[in-house]
Order: sequence, then structure tokens, then C-alpha cells
Amino acid sequence: VSTISPLRVALVGYGYWGPNVARNVAQSEEADLAAVVDLSPSRRVVAASQFPKAKICESVAQLEFGAIDAVVIATPASSHVELAAPFLAAGVHVLIEKPLALSMKDAVKLVQLAKTNNCVLMVDHTYLFSDAVIMMAELVRSGQLGDLIHFDSTRVNLGIFQPDTSVIWDLAVHDVAILRYVTGLLPKTVSATTHSHRESKHPVVASMSLQFSEDFFAHIAVSWISPVKVRKLTLSGFNKTIVFDDVASDEKIRVYDSGVDSILMSEGRNALLRYRLGDVIAPRLRGVEALRREIDCFVSSIRSAIEPISSGADSLATIAVLQAAEKSALAGGEPVKVDYTI
Amino acid sequence: VSTISPLRVALVGYGYWGPNVARNVAQSEEADLAAVVDLSPSRRVVAASQFPKAKICESVAQLEFGAIDAVVIATPASSHVELAAPFLAAGVHVLIEKPLALSMKDAVKLVQLAKTNNCVLMVDHTYLFSDAVIMMAELVRSGQLGDLIHFDSTRVNLGIFQPDTSVIWDLAVHDVAILRYVTGLLPKTVSATTHSHRESKHPVVASMSLQFSEDFFAHIAVSWISPVKVRKLTLSGFNKTIVFDDVASDEKIRVYDSGVDSILMSEGRNALLRYRLGDVIAPRLRGVEALRREIDCFVSSIRSAIEPISSGADSLATIAVLQAAEKSALAGGEPVKVDYTI
Amino acid sequence: VSTISPLRVALVGYGYWGPNVARNVAQSEEADLAAVVDLSPSRRVVAASQFPKAKICESVAQLEFGAIDAVVIATPASSHVELAAPFLAAGVHVLIEKPLALSMKDAVKLVQLAKTNNCVLMVDHTYLFSDAVIMMAELVRSGQLGDLIHFDSTRVNLGIFQPDTSVIWDLAVHDVAILRYVTGLLPKTVSATTHSHRESKHPVVASMSLQFSEDFFAHIAVSWISPVKVRKLTLSGFNKTIVFDDVASDEKIRVYDSGVDSILMSEGRNALLRYRLGDVIAPRLRGVEALRREIDCFVSSIRSAIEPISSGADSLATIAVLQAAEKSALAGGEPVKVDYTI
Amino acid sequence: VSTISPLRVALVGYGYWGPNVARNVAQSEEADLAAVVDLSPSRRVVAASQFPKAKICESVAQLEFGAIDAVVIATPASSHVELAAPFLAAGVHVLIEKPLALSMKDAVKLVQLAKTNNCVLMVDHTYLFSDAVIMMAELVRSGQLGDLIHFDSTRVNLGIFQPDTSVIWDLAVHDVAILRYVTGLLPKTVSATTHSHRESKHPVVASMSLQFSEDFFAHIAVSWISPVKVRKLTLSGFNKTIVFDDVASDEKIRVYDSGVDSILMSEGRNALLRYRLGDVIAPRLRGVEALRREIDCFVSSIRSAIEPISSGADSLATIAVLQAAEKSALAGGEPVKVDYTI
Repeated sequence: VSTISPLRVALVGYGYWGPNVARNVAQSEEADLAAVVDLSPSRRVVAASQFPKAKICESVAQLEFGAIDAVVIATPASSHVELAAPFLAAGVHVLIEKPLALSMKDAVKLVQLAKTNNCVLMVDHTYLFSDAVIMMAELVRSGQLGDLIHFDSTRVNLGIFQPDTSVIWDLAVHDVAILRYVTGLLPKTVSATTHSHRESKHPVVASMSLQFSEDFFAHIAVSWISPVKVRKLTLSGFNKTIVFDDVASDEKIRVYDSGVDSILMSEGRNALLRYRLGDVIAPRLRGVEALRREIDCFVSSIRSAIEPISSGADSLATIAVLQAAEKSALAGGEPVKVDYTI
Repeated sequence: VSTISPLRVALVGYGYWGPNVARNVAQSEEADLAAVVDLSPSRRVVAASQFPKAKICESVAQLEFGAIDAVVIATPASSHVELAAPFLAAGVHVLIEKPLALSMKDAVKLVQLAKTNNCVLMVDHTYLFSDAVIMMAELVRSGQLGDLIHFDSTRVNLGIFQPDTSVIWDLAVHDVAILRYVTGLLPKTVSATTHSHRESKHPVVASMSLQFSEDFFAHIAVSWISPVKVRKLTLSGFNKTIVFDDVASDEKIRVYDSGVDSILMSEGRNALLRYRLGDVIAPRLRGVEALRREIDCFVSSIRSAIEPISSGADSLATIAVLQAAEKSALAGGEPVKVDYTI
Repeated sequence: VSTISPLRVALVGYGYWGPNVARNVAQSEEADLAAVVDLSPSRRVVAASQFPKAKICESVAQLEFGAIDAVVIATPASSHVELAAPFLAAGVHVLIEKPLALSMKDAVKLVQLAKTNNCVLMVDHTYLFSDAVIMMAELVRSGQLGDLIHFDSTRVNLGIFQPDTSVIWDLAVHDVAILRYVTGLLPKTVSATTHSHRESKHPVVASMSLQFSEDFFAHIAVSWISPVKVRKLTLSGFNKTIVFDDVASDEKIRVYDSGVDSILMSEGRNALLRYRLGDVIAPRLRGVEALRREIDCFVSSIRSAIEPISSGADSLATIAVLQAAEKSALAGGEPVKVDYTI
Repeated sequence: VSTISPLRVALVGYGYWGPNVARNVAQSEEADLAAVVDLSPSRRVVAASQFPKAKICESVAQLEFGAIDAVVIATPASSHVELAAPFLAAGVHVLIEKPLALSMKDAVKLVQLAKTNNCVLMVDHTYLFSDAVIMMAELVRSGQLGDLIHFDSTRVNLGIFQPDTSVIWDLAVHDVAILRYVTGLLPKTVSATTHSHRESKHPVVASMSLQFSEDFFAHIAVSWISPVKVRKLTLSGFNKTIVFDDVASDEKIRVYDSGVDSILMSEGRNALLRYRLGDVIAPRLRGVEALRREIDCFVSSIRSAIEPISSGADSLATIAVLQAAEKSALAGGEPVKVDYTI
């Protein structure tokens, strides 16, 4: 049993995702849920009934910054800079919903504030703490995929139209974060096309092509208007291919020992490919809730002052890619070089 | 029983697809398989054993054009113009593998030759004769989908690298043909990105975005290097969505009575969508082989002089779209206006 | 808003299922979770943290019977009679885990006690309150299935070996209850075979055949040792067949418009069946949690004195069938007539 | 190239299965399809067009027994004894559709005739030559499953009602043959229940329980009236479980590294199982057509005089099991000891 007193954590935003964060903070032995802030009276009633010990507030102004060690911000992306900056300035550690911000400029501002004030700034890229993505990263690092060829993601369903941003910032942010974490690679250029919908101010469907080195590329398809839900990532190497199907009730990760081996010229005009078609393996996953792992990581980063996996600084490259995608989409799909300069 | 003598049909190309054509011609009561031409000695041996009554030839030069009424050309796309032109010039009706040609110029040449010589020129877009695509077209025409929003296709597997052309001309040709047939719409602009592979001279993966009117758009993903085979088309309207999964062993067509109904503003900052989630119906398909329907259509077009569904003239628009996609890909993905002028 | 004060409900047993009951009682506006009883200290700690307002007790003896209106008993089946009888004798309404008891004799005892003391005695057959089973019952009652032919259920997985009873009483109880509720029919005879396992005192696999009238029969397969989880019920009529797949993430209910129509004699020796293969429909389910519906039903039965759907009296027929199955299994599978006499 | 002249093979019965046999005989380099016999004029027309070199006969009487080396009998089971006996008596090798006969008596008669006349008598248990069943047998023999616990098969669909026999002889024959081949074990007792249908003289649904040693048992469910087709075999050992799903378009064999490890007594009244949940592997199958392998085995048995895998003698045990199942079903499901005496 720890003799250190638990971190006092406030939660700002008790909408769709906030309750999951609150539950995990409350269940952690190293943290207490000290306060919950939400603009909506009805959400505050629910929060109060679920977490009777937490202080329930109408606005951030009601929080005493000196009485909390850390804050989790689970509000729409457009509010992130404005909400997070005062906490960081006051030396409060911040875990913030993805995306960190809706522009490179705002994101850099928060990262620098955190640095100046010796705060942990972590972005809630929950997927990076999931069994499946950890398994993907381990498989890539083991070298058994061979040289990487292709990353492909489809993330579509009937989703909530975000009032303040497009499907790129809301959904493709997951794929870019996963892609970077699993492969350790950064795209050079992005080409994106987007499509809108009568009922939305922002694009609701997007298709993004990312070019890395000469031999590796990625494609990401996201949509808020697909009646069929798909959450499927494919990462192909010359030797093996991983498929992560997050909609599957089990066997979310499958590894195909298949690929294109070589080409033989046949008689006549056709070339012949020699395929390798091997076993398929669905490795057993560990069964740990991703958000639990993430909260643990946030806490231990604060305790140890070691940068967490999905730190604000690390997340800047993801913001840069999304910003380039948005720029390409505005230009009708022409390729845009990603600008990683801070 | 018909008193008209059967059409005498020659087949040029007895590779991967040719045997299917040969079998369906041989089984037709209105046609005889008079001759089979293939460059490869081993393929000629197989053809001879399967079709003992057909004349087996090494080259087209061995055919007597006067002794045949029609020819089916099932050879690589780059050979189409050169092979088909003499037949049309001699008044022989032509059914030709997709794509009709690898450029608008060549395609137009064949269409004009057919017109001048009063020949049927039909392109083997087999999908347009399949139970599933016919069902899709009927559902669209019935109006029950409502205004169309989005067409999406994924057509990927470990496929043969064509030596003479890219995956766009080989695979995306299906999606463009189906899209046009089912919706009756033509895209205004195309944006495409492609990717290559060590072992291929031509792109092996492509992602295409097609913009139609303001409210309708399409996305097509094709690949020859996916270890997992996917053949999935989704067509969404405001009322219903059709999903055609050609890899499914049954229930290839599924109709989702779901969609985005309207938006309500909620308290706080989030917008609320009102989804409609209804029944899913998998209509029973008829169970007729597509190629059988297509050969019947070819025969009756010749008999009746009525233009077939997938005539060469009709296919020109498909060629125009693919050509624009290729141009966009060469320019790194910038949007290209489709030029339909003949 | 109701002016009647909420029912004071105690929960006995806070193991695997108890917490679900507790949550639904606590969320009901018509009931308060007044007390939780569990033998295990660690379970009491968890209950206390989740339900701070409830009295947490080590044994039933610590409950004041006069201070509660109803009790939910979620303990192993072998304890039911002993635990429930004193509550009924004291006029406390009882909702009890399935099966009601492990013998007809014990079950009848509880039913009569409830009657004598004017108590509601309801059995927690949660499935009877699920969207899927309600939909099945509605489809049967609508007549669209035609005359019923066959009910088939497979309910297998790696399940907890119950220390006090066999897989028949633990799992097949669900199928018998559903079958009775959906069809309204009672089997005449049961034939069952069971199999044991090194680590279990009681059978872990069972296969049961139930004969109803001449034209309708059922088969139920249950197992605690299947590495693959299956929860699949099929109910066939002459016109349509319903399949309920409870493991499916969506489309749990599917209705097949298929069947055997008639027989034609063919030439030669084979008879020809004429199948009808029609559409498949997956109707949208309502999305209500079954246990919520059930708690509401329990509460309103108490308020209205109308017998609930899965009353103790109704459940006696289910017990009779399970008892016959056990008897048949002991006799190696020979058919046993079900004795419904009370 | 063989210098031995090919076997001259006659085929009796050109109905549902016969054409598959004919194609494989014709494609074999070691056999010629010398003759096809069918009662039906229309079937003879089809046979003649497909196999122009074969003699087409109306009845067996038209065959010259001296001009053929072997015969394949693909007719209804009730005709087997009468048809096969004269061939064996004349020294003609026989490959016969499953089941060998509809009674132990008839089956023994054929086996003894074959022995007396030095003929190969082989039963067409095609499954025993399939990639999947061979893989199952190899996995069992490798010992990695551990001690066997349970075999379970479901083989149901809308099937042709056989005019001369029940679903047990028509479908369960597959499962009994596979079970015996894969495990090498023989059941001691069988308990079966069957159900009939308005349109059939014989049972159309059956459920069979087979008891082997104390620790191993099997269950087989077969039906001709299920609108949903299932072909699923599960073989569980203490260490691993194999699932063979013959309806799956790929990954027909899946091996689960899961099971029940041991039991721990928990606090309170519940026992705790310790499950082992491991990886799932879908091994790549070889892609050889089963019937091709079987015809090759038949030919080499004739050439080598080595008994084939599914010889008539071997098949007697399968007949004994089916006969016991039928007897049990007639007695309403009571367990019947299998009589293997010849």
C-alpha cells in the first residue's frame, strides 16, 4: 500500500467520454476524483449521484487550483486551448482529450506552457494503451512483418457530427496516432479529399493518402455517415500482415502469414505472382481496459517526471499531419507536404 | 426451338477468363464455339480437350473471318485495339474484355469502327449482368434509397500484377462501371493517389475520390497486395443504404433502413444527431450466372441490332473516368476534371 | 412523479449476478436498494463502495423483515428453498434467481407459501424480458411462421462448473423457459444424455430431445466446456424460421423466409424437394436492458397484484421438464414422460 | 509417364454426385471413364455431351463386365447390395457411395464377396480425403490436443429427403466416419432420437449421443429441414480444441489453445474454474480436391493390392454404429450397445 497521498484529480466535461474517465480515476488507488465540472445541470445531477464524494461545479472558476494536482479535460476540441492553458500556468498536470488542439499553433502553445511550468501534458490517445495496439507495436518491433508496405484504416459509422470540427480531427486523429506509434514513421506528404452533408458545417467523410518513404504509404478512410460500423486497420509487411478489427467481438488482432513473394514471367503475356499463403493466427489479448492503463500512465508520469507515451510534445506530429490533410482537402486533394516545424 | 442457325463464335485468349467465356458460349443454344485462339501451346492443349469440336489456333491469322459471326477477345488490355480492329473492319461482332482500351483515343477508334461496319461492340463488364448489381440498380430506381449521398467500394486482394497496366485499369474499372450503371451519374472530377511495389512496373494500390454534383460523391479503393480479400460496395441514400459484399457466401446484398435523420441542438456545446436505425433486409437473389446473362445479351444484340447494356459507346465514359484518375495520380493526387468529349 | 413511496428491496447474494440486479434496483424510481447481504467480506466491501446508502449485512439474520417490502435472492440454486421460505412466510415479495429450485417438491413448496401469504414470487428468467425473446414471441403470435416444426438451441461455452448442480439446471433452464414462453407449448416426453468431467461432481454437457405433439419437437444442447461460445436458438415453422444468435454483436434476430414447400416425385429414384428460399430480415430491436424491464415488472406486480410473466407458479412447468431430463439422463437417455402434477 | 494402360472405369448413377466422380476419373492419368449408366434419358443426354468417349448405357445389363476393371456406384443406398454384388462376383473392383449398405448384413455380404474375389471394395467417404479432415487427424496424432474429451457435430440444411432412408444413414454417416478416422475410437453405446416431417417417409432430423470410454463422448445433430446451413465439427481435448467449419469460405480449420485447467475452491459457495484462453490458429490447408485424392487412392489400391483407407471392411464399424442409432431411435432414445460382430 502506498504511503504517498493520492493525486487530487478534477474532471472538466461530463458528457460522452467523461464518465469513463471518472470511473477509472475513482477506481485508481493512486488518484481521487476531487471534482467534476460540467455546464449542463442534468449532467451535474448524474455526476453527483455517481460520485458523491466529488465536488460538482458549474464552471472551472469554481475550482480551487491549489486544491488539485491534475485535471482531465474531456470537452470539445475547440475549447482545449482556452481551458487547459490556465491549469498549466498554475502548475496543474493535464490529461486532455484528443486532439490536443485544432491547429499546430494552439498545440505548440500548450506544449510550451507545460514545459515552462514543469507539468505533465498528456493527450488522451486511448488506443495507444489498448491491448490490440500494444500487440501491433510488439509485432512490428519483433521484425516478423518484414519491411512495411502499407497501412490502411477504415473508421466509419453513424457518428455524432461534431459542431466545432471535421471528421478528420475527430476520427482520423486515432489512425494517425496509431500509425505513428506502431511504425515510428512520419509521412512526408498527405493528400486528402473530404465531403460534406446537408446537416453539418464541417466535412463528414474523408479519404486521406499518406506517403512516407518510397516504399511505405498509408490510406485512411473516415466517415460519420456510414450505417454499417467499421473499425479496421491493416498493416502489411513483406512477410506478414496484421489486421486489427475493433468491431469483432473477439480475435480483434489477426496475423496473416501471407504475401507476395516474387514474380515469375510466364509464357504468353501474363506475369505470374508467387503468393505465399500461410497460417492465420489470432493471438490472445491481455484483457486490460485501455483507459485504466492510460490513467495509470498519467499518474506515474506525474510521480516520476518521465514523459508519458502520448505526451503533448509527441502529439504535435499528429497535429501536423491532420493540419496538412485539412489543407489538402481545401485544395481539392492536391498533395501537401507535412510541416513538422514547431 | 430456334430455326435460325447458331452464331459462330471465336474466342481469342484462353487464359484465366477465357475458359469461363468458352463454357458459356458452348452451353448457349444460340451460339457455337467455332474456334479458340491462344499463343500458348499448353493452353491450346487444354482448350482442345475441353472443346473437341472447336478449331484450335495459334494466332488470329489462322481464323477465317468469313466463317465466324462474332469474336470474344479475352486478352490483356494493351492488345485490345490491335486485335479487335480487324474483326470490326471485317464486320465481325466483338465482345471484349474490360477495359475496352487503355486510352480514350483507342476506345473511340474501336467504337467508331463498330459503328461504320454495323457491328455490335460490347464490353465484358460481367458485373453489370450479376444478380447483385441488377438488384442494386432496381433498388435505386425504385426510389427507396432517397437522394444518393455516397458510393464506396473496396476491391482488394492478392491479385495478379498485370504486366501492361495498373490496378486502376484492372480493378477500379469494375467499380466505375457499376457506379455508372446503378446510379446513372457521371463524376465531374477525380482525385487519385497510387502506390507501387518492388515487383511491379505499374501502381498496385490506388485510392480514388470522385465528385459528382454537390451532394453525391464516391470513393474507390483497389489493391493487388492485400492478403485479405475484400469486395465490398456501399451505396448510401438519405433513406437507405445498400451493401454488396461479393465475398460473402450468401446474403451478398443487404439493405439497411438506417440513416441520419436530422440534427437537434442539445444543451451544452454538442449537437445531437437523430439516427434512424431500422431493419436490415437481405433480399433473395435469383441465382443466375452473370456470364450466362451476358452471353445471352450479346447474342440478342446481334440478332436484334439493339445496343447492349455495356456497349462500347457506353463504356467510353468509364474510360474517361479512369484516364482522369491516372492523370490525377501522376500529379500526386490533384483533382482532375473528367473529359468526356469523344 | 409517483407519490407512493418506493419499495424497500433487499438483495441476498452479491456474487456474479447480484451487482446487475443491485444496479437496476438502485436506478429504478419505484424501488430503493435497502440492504445487501453476502457471506463474503470482500464482496461486502465492494457492495458498500458501490451502494453507500444500502445496509450491508453478513447474513439474512441481520435483516429486519419488517423494514423491507421485497427481496431479490441471487444465490446458488441449492440454497433457494431455505433462503426464500422465511421471507415469503413473513409476507416479503420474492424475486429469485433461476432455477426456482432443484426439485419439483421444493418449487411447489415456495409457490404455495407465496400463495398463502399473498406474496409475489417471481423467477429471474431474464431472457423472457429481453428484446430478442419478446420479438420471437411476437413473431410466433403473429402467425407468420406457420405451424411450428422444430426448436433447436445450442448454449455452450467455458462456463463456471456449479458446485451444487448440473449444466441442465444451470443452462438448459434458459432454453426450456424461452421455448415455453415463445411457443406456449409443453413437451410430453424428454430424452437426455449427459457427460461429466474430471473436475466436476455434476454433468457438464447435456443433450436433450423434447417431444411435444406429433409435429413439433425440440433439441437443446448445453455445455460448460466448449472453448467456443455459442448462444443460438432456432425456431422453424412451415413458412419461416427465426434464428436468435445472442453472441452476435448486432442482428441478434434474423427471420428466414425459407422452408420446405412440397415434394415432387422425379424420374429415376430420387424424390425432389421444392424449397422456398426467400429474403432474410433482421428486425431492429428496441435496445432496452432486459433486467430493467424485469425489475419494472416485479415492482408493478407487487403494486397491482397481477401475476408477473415468470411467476413461480408459471415456472413449475419448467422445473418439471428439467426434472424429467435429469431422470432420463440417469437412465442413460431413455425417454421420460414429464410429470406436471403439483 | 506410366507404361501401364489406364484402368477402364464404369460409372453407375449420373445424378447429383456422379458427375463429380466422372470428372475426376476422366482427369486421372491412370483411369479412363469407359462407360456411364443411368436410368434417366435426360441424364444420359447430359453425360453423353460431357463425356463423348464414354459408352452411355440405360442399365447395367448393357455393360460388358470383361471390358471394365472397376466400377463406381453412385446410386441411392438401398440399391447398393443388388448393384455391387454382381460386379464383385465378376472380379470388378468397386468404389461405392456412402453408406456401403443400409444394414450390417448387406454390408458384410459385400465385404465377403470382395474378399473372395480379390477385389478392392472402397466406400466413397469423401471427407476422409479432404484437406480439413486430414489436418484434424494429423493434429490428433501429434498429441497436442491432449486427452480427448468431446466430439460434436452439427450437419444441417435444407437437404433432399432421401426416398429410401433416413437422415441418419444419409448425413450422420459422414460424422461417424470422420470421428472414427480422426480419433481411431469406437463408441460403446448410442442413444438417438429422431423426428419426422409431413412430406417424408423417414426421419428428417436426428440427435445422437455416443459414449466411448468413460472420458470421451460425442454428439451428432443432423437435419434436412434447417433453412440455415451448418457443417461444424468440434473436437475438444484437455489442451486444445479443433473446430472444422465446412461452410466457412476460408479458415475451415481453427485450433483453439483454450480449455479448462483446474478448479480452485473460492471463498463463499462458488467454485472457481481456471480457464486457459490462448491463441487461435487457422492453419493453411493444402488446396487439393478431396475426390481427386480419393480416386487416386482407389486406383493405387487396385494397382498395389493394399487396402484403401475407407475400405468396405473398415466401413463395417460405421454401419454398426448407424444401425445401433436407428435401433435406439425406434426405442424412443434408449441407449443401445453397438454390436460390431460380423
